[in-house]
Amino acid sequence: MTTIRHITLPGGFSAGAVHCGIKSTSQEDLTILACDVDASAAVLTTTNQVVGAPVLWLRCILPRGYGKARGVVVNSGCSNVCTGARGLADAEAMASLTGRLLGCQAEKVLVASTGIIGHRLPMDKVRAGIAAAAARLGQSDDAAALRGIMTTDTREKSAVVQTRIGGATVTVAGIVKGSGMIAPSMATMIALITTDAAIAPADLHKALVRAGRRSFNAVTVDSDTSTSDTVAVLASGAAGNKPLKGGSADYGKFQSALSEVCYELARSVVVDGEGATKLVEIAVCGARSDAEAKIAAKSVADSPLFKCAIHGGDPNWGRIAAALGKSAAKVDPDKLKIKIGGVTIFARGTGRKFDLAKVEAHLAGKEVKVACDLGLGKGGFTALTCDLSREYITINADYHT
Amino acid sequence: MTTIRHITLPGGFSAGAVHCGIKSTSQEDLTILACDVDASAAVLTTTNQVVGAPVLWLRCILPRGYGKARGVVVNSGCSNVCTGARGLADAEAMASLTGRLLGCQAEKVLVASTGIIGHRLPMDKVRAGIAAAAARLGQSDDAAALRGIMTTDTREKSAVVQTRIGGATVTVAGIVKGSGMIAPSMATMIALITTDAAIAPADLHKALVRAGRRSFNAVTVDSDTSTSDTVAVLASGAAGNKPLKGGSADYGKFQSALSEVCYELARSVVVDGEGATKLVEIAVCGARSDAEAKIAAKSVADSPLFKCAIHGGDPNWGRIAAALGKSAAKVDPDKLKIKIGGVTIFARGTGRKFDLAKVEAHLAGKEVKVACDLGLGKGGFTALTCDLSREYITINADYHT
Repeated sequence: MTTIRHITLPGGFSAGAVHCGIKSTSQEDLTILACDVDASAAVLTTTNQVVGAPVLWLRCILPRGYGKARGVVVNSGCSNVCTGARGLADAEAMASLTGRLLGCQAEKVLVASTGIIGHRLPMDKVRAGIAAAAARLGQSDDAAALRGIMTTDTREKSAVVQTRIGGATVTVAGIVKGSGMIAPSMATMIALITTDAAIAPADLHKALVRAGRRSFNAVTVDSDTSTSDTVAVLASGAAGNKPLKGGSADYGKFQSALSEVCYELARSVVVDGEGATKLVEIAVCGARSDAEAKIAAKSVADSPLFKCAIHGGDPNWGRIAAALGKSAAKVDPDKLKIKIGGVTIFARGTGRKFDLAKVEAHLAGKEVKVACDLGLGKGGFTALTCDLSREYITINADYHT
Repeated sequence: MTTIRHITLPGGFSAGAVHCGIKSTSQEDLTILACDVDASAAVLTTTNQVVGAPVLWLRCILPRGYGKARGVVVNSGCSNVCTGARGLADAEAMASLTGRLLGCQAEKVLVASTGIIGHRLPMDKVRAGIAAAAARLGQSDDAAALRGIMTTDTREKSAVVQTRIGGATVTVAGIVKGSGMIAPSMATMIALITTDAAIAPADLHKALVRAGRRSFNAVTVDSDTSTSDTVAVLASGAAGNKPLKGGSADYGKFQSALSEVCYELARSVVVDGEGATKLVEIAVCGARSDAEAKIAAKSVADSPLFKCAIHGGDPNWGRIAAALGKSAAKVDPDKLKIKIGGVTIFARGTGRKFDLAKVEAHLAGKEVKVACDLGLGKGGFTALTCDLSREYITINADYHT
């Protein structure tokens, strides 16, 4: 028996997972997360215009991105994307059946699916799986619940933060699946976060949007936005803190805890990025605005040439300068400074003499830090990415439908 | 003695090339293209905000992108990018010395450089190379001239079109270097085009801008815009046609010839893209505008997941739909149609049953055609790209500065 606990650590939650046959492996492929009460719920979903049926369902039941929910049902192995009206009916059926077992309406159940695009869900298996997973809620086997949302992730990714807020111990916990592929589909990211904090849905959503900005929305493995990206947070209120009000000091503490969990989950997705051997942080400062800093940082983070150079351990600042320059953010080479591992390698329009051995030693490590000061203003943003390796190609080219 | 002719085929041009020691190989690394008279000249240069000194020189002598020129000097092996004020002085010195040998002012000489970023040119070698190349202009060894602008291109890329215009035979010829890497620098694309047509500089520029739109500006190997991209066309007028006026039928014929040469050169760059094994055409129609069609087509052409699927010969329409959906172009999955090799594989929001063997046979070939009808308007654009292979990673990761 496993003793790993994360998403059921906050009071008020239980989880169950089973293998019902959607995945071809024997790994769990259906997870239910349940809350004892109507939890405050907030979600972030993909900005892709092609969206999966589960995302459509979430937008249907939570049109403003927040509300009340009793639970979440997630399957892996089939993303239920591009499946038309019947796919949406399948997502609704998942919510409806789960709701019946949890004692609530379908509209109180969030749905998320990950896996191959363009295939209908095997609903007989899904129905049996939901019944079986619900029957296991009492066990709260968090490890199985996490495996149930994974595809070809190579490691289990979770994060927990505990903090004292308003006289109570508040726990924020999360699990995430990342960018592995079991099928020729998009790298669909799904994160589930639980907390026992007492907080209203709208305040929870505000905190999630803020936390997402510098975590989930700051990472890139390969620039391909998924059709299914979903982050959901449920707050049970079981901690017994005074309900958190936006703008208060206690709300600020909760925001910090939620942001920390989101950052850790997002970071772990990049570390487990397809073919990744290194985590790369690109911190841009001195931009004309935060928005331009994000554009500039993402341009470097998405540059295949830069990512190949990092893979090869080469301090190729020319590729960094070029990636900044091709972006829509304002860049002036004469004001630009570039550092790798804290060592200035480019300034005043040209490369500087630098300690090559020191920079190469930094690049040989597992975590690479690139800092770019655009010298134009106060805007800043930090993007996280990984290197680009042959393994990425192998994972994504050597699969046949 | 070689008999290959291209850029000196149009009347009025001569070319000379030598190895002067900028490249570590024994291949030619300095090329001079000269015109007997002041030619009409037009250039397109990179949109990257970090630009090489030769591009700054071109913008200095041709602030509107066109004017008169007597020749072009190109070196390979060092791009003279991010080299500060001294780099610009080096570019000017190349123009000045070449101009002296051609009997014109420095301002009549275009300059282009390709190769590693951030290194000063070895000017002693460059000066000797210019003198030696100028001495060989009489030989008009076009093959050597082409080799002199190449870096690690795996094949020689040129195009020639001849057509009757205004009672004269007009020739348009071009050479191009593409996306090979001899050094950890950007894939710098340089194309030189010659014609004996009589045409004013402004009209020539207009034709080049139009030709570039659906050729050079429609291709992508890896989404990384170079700091040195330069396309230059020189028109000697030696054909003896009545000078071409914008809007006339004869101008239209010239436009067609120039567009054809540009398209062939751009296409050949993609075929020789780093690690490329297939040429991929992504034709988007039915967009709300041509601009949105271009955004949508480029989003697919730059998607690493799509490019890996093509490399693996997998008809992964989910990745195409997702790449369209993540773009800034308006996309409605229910109106979207996707074809591969002429076979409809996605329509009305979901995948269609299709002849898998037929599509896989198409994908196994050297040229892959993807067509996306957004079903929203009349905008269209065709992008050209290549697949993404392990070889791309090898070329760009396994190099050390």
